[in-house]
Amino acid sequence: LATDLGVGRGSVVEAYSRLIEEGWLVARQGGSTRAAAVPLSSPPPAAAARPTRLWQHDLRPGRADPASFPRSDWAAAVRRVLTDAPNEAFDYAEWRGRSELRIALAGYLGRARGVRCTAEQVLVCTGAGHGMGLALRALAGLGRRRVAVEEPGAPQLRRIAAAAGLEVVGLPCDEHGARVELLAGMDVGVVVVTPAHQFPLGVTLSADRRTRLVAWARDHDAVVVEDDYDGELRYDRQPVGALQALDPDHVIYAGTTSKSLAPALRIGWLVVPPRLCRHLAKTAELINAAPSALDQLALTQLITTGGFDRHVRRLRGLYRSRRDLLIDSLATSAPTTVVTGASAGGHALVRLDPAGPGEAEVVAGAARRGIALSGLTDFRHPDPLDLHAESSPALVVGYATPAGQSHRTAISALAAFLGQIS
Amino acid sequence: LATDLGVGRGSVVEAYSRLIEEGWLVARQGGSTRAAAVPLSSPPPAAAARPTRLWQHDLRPGRADPASFPRSDWAAAVRRVLTDAPNEAFDYAEWRGRSELRIALAGYLGRARGVRCTAEQVLVCTGAGHGMGLALRALAGLGRRRVAVEEPGAPQLRRIAAAAGLEVVGLPCDEHGARVELLAGMDVGVVVVTPAHQFPLGVTLSADRRTRLVAWARDHDAVVVEDDYDGELRYDRQPVGALQALDPDHVIYAGTTSKSLAPALRIGWLVVPPRLCRHLAKTAELINAAPSALDQLALTQLITTGGFDRHVRRLRGLYRSRRDLLIDSLATSAPTTVVTGASAGGHALVRLDPAGPGEAEVVAGAARRGIALSGLTDFRHPDPLDLHAESSPALVVGYATPAGQSHRTAISALAAFLGQIS
Repeated sequence: LATDLGVGRGSVVEAYSRLIEEGWLVARQGGSTRAAAVPLSSPPPAAAARPTRLWQHDLRPGRADPASFPRSDWAAAVRRVLTDAPNEAFDYAEWRGRSELRIALAGYLGRARGVRCTAEQVLVCTGAGHGMGLALRALAGLGRRRVAVEEPGAPQLRRIAAAAGLEVVGLPCDEHGARVELLAGMDVGVVVVTPAHQFPLGVTLSADRRTRLVAWARDHDAVVVEDDYDGELRYDRQPVGALQALDPDHVIYAGTTSKSLAPALRIGWLVVPPRLCRHLAKTAELINAAPSALDQLALTQLITTGGFDRHVRRLRGLYRSRRDLLIDSLATSAPTTVVTGASAGGHALVRLDPAGPGEAEVVAGAARRGIALSGLTDFRHPDPLDLHAESSPALVVGYATPAGQSHRTAISALAAFLGQIS
Repeated sequence: LATDLGVGRGSVVEAYSRLIEEGWLVARQGGSTRAAAVPLSSPPPAAAARPTRLWQHDLRPGRADPASFPRSDWAAAVRRVLTDAPNEAFDYAEWRGRSELRIALAGYLGRARGVRCTAEQVLVCTGAGHGMGLALRALAGLGRRRVAVEEPGAPQLRRIAAAAGLEVVGLPCDEHGARVELLAGMDVGVVVVTPAHQFPLGVTLSADRRTRLVAWARDHDAVVVEDDYDGELRYDRQPVGALQALDPDHVIYAGTTSKSLAPALRIGWLVVPPRLCRHLAKTAELINAAPSALDQLALTQLITTGGFDRHVRRLRGLYRSRRDLLIDSLATSAPTTVVTGASAGGHALVRLDPAGPGEAEVVAGAARRGIALSGLTDFRHPDPLDLHAESSPALVVGYATPAGQSHRTAISALAAFLGQIS
């Protein structure tokens, strides 16, 4: 071959050895070298064969419009980081996150959410779920045994809390948010709440209850975990600031880019009381997960250049108009429904006529028309401990979910369907 | 103000309300609106004030040369993803990872490391530490109580294994790798090994022991976790294939981009026996951490276009020449030292003259000259269970750590220092 190609024998040997190293050729001891049996194109994964339900309209909550992602802003931020970042940025980062992002977040959260903290208290994580898992795991390690979570609430949070080693009990919610007056009798050392926009009811924790909640935490040396998953997206009035500001020593604040940018990014944060910072950082190291340091620097870029604020402002306008469209469409086509909890975020509660078809029947009927819906029942504890919890039939409608202009047909399909059955 | 600017009152009210929403202005009930007290530039984090040791030369192991990161390739891959990816890519991904990457990894690992798997068995995680933590946690959940880890080995792995709920015992290693014949008497259901390039000794698990190890796993229904942290980077002979290929039903394979690309990326993978896949995916969801789906797609790009192979090939040449320089420099300047375990990866064992100064003394002496070194003692179990474990004085030299050309001065400083003291 060396003679054929007019190159040295060494080059041929080297080329062979590289091709073997990379698996393209297979050498047999004392035998010939042959091409490896590498499939030209990989077979499709078995998963693709499994039937996945394809929805014509997806109005389930908990997601952002994926078409809203600021693709070119993010591409520019990443490019900038890859051009400018020092070599050191490509090495292991602290498990608490890059200091640049922690500084930017302390500034942003103080300004936009009223959070009171220094950059030292910020721990960057891969989303609010990861962060709250770390917080609960750390608290379990410090001897806390039971945690109260909102009822109704996110089912995933209950599973994460149980996996963190805590016994999970439900804290009922009503139209003023979590019924914090019940905590005194619950023997819990931790409570997780969504004060700005209760998930899934959509209500705001009343001022009176906010005060009461932090007083309870102080009196019982308890910790409140504040899940501020969509705090930036408020429509009707002045922003409801973070609960954390009322007592930075007893509240762990959790935030995420999953609603404001995209769940795909997997970047979130905790703001941790100073006395818990070291233990939280140690827990983060033991779980050994963190977002890419390069993405952390790209987000820092976006925040410090004002691009993040601009994007959130755009998103707020976008979702507000969808929210208004939902309310108007239902008022016109399905006047027996009542929309509540719609002053923020990407979902609203649509209460159904108690005299009409039941919640499960409505969800099933919508599914037959290609509309994916979540009933309020989906967010109830499978074994509810409290009978006072909200129990009238309702849908949790995620108007942020449909991509781009498809929200129009999705909302009108929903309105037409609900009008038909009422 | 509306009159001054010649705009409608509505616009002014809207502008005020946006500035308040974003925290630039503060409105007082019934009072005036004033500018918020936003610091013009954030204060430096307190951490920056803490004294951090600055090394002139860092030769500690476990890191990649941060200057080797293919910045423009990665930027191009990210740009391509941000241009081409469907909206759906910005939404939540499966906790097991994007199917595109799982398919690409199954192909790559089969070709380059001899791993036998389908894409269904691949679980994408944020690095080998995160992945092994998930695996150990899942196995603890299935009733395994004790895990054996290599002695000497990575101290972080012991902590991760203990946090996963397992009792950790040390498995001594010698010049043929882990002494797997001892497993029979250890009453463990799981063992973590580094067969291709033992960390930190650098030796390869002998063929005989590989066979014995999987036979033990089969006979005892045990699970072997194979940490293939630098499997791509082999220099002297044909690649040592993954142990996983000997028994895909009893070996969980863990890999990472931390050595081949950069620790900053936080992307790794597990290849899991089919019977454990579902449980592993559930564990991953409970920990709720994953790499950015966009980065997963960018890595897919890099692998499928051949850019990843090209980069690893370049890196292999780079590190091989550093390794050769280390061996030559020490042979010339410090002939009483012996370099072993240098046939792969980014670190080698430098055995010190047992008659010369002790390991701790050498590390301290180097530190005084601005050279950061790790002694082999750093990787021993604080409470060693076995007296047969490797105990002669040695340094674990990470020749991959110095950025770019700085490895030359670092290696010659080390050689000069070791020559001086011997």
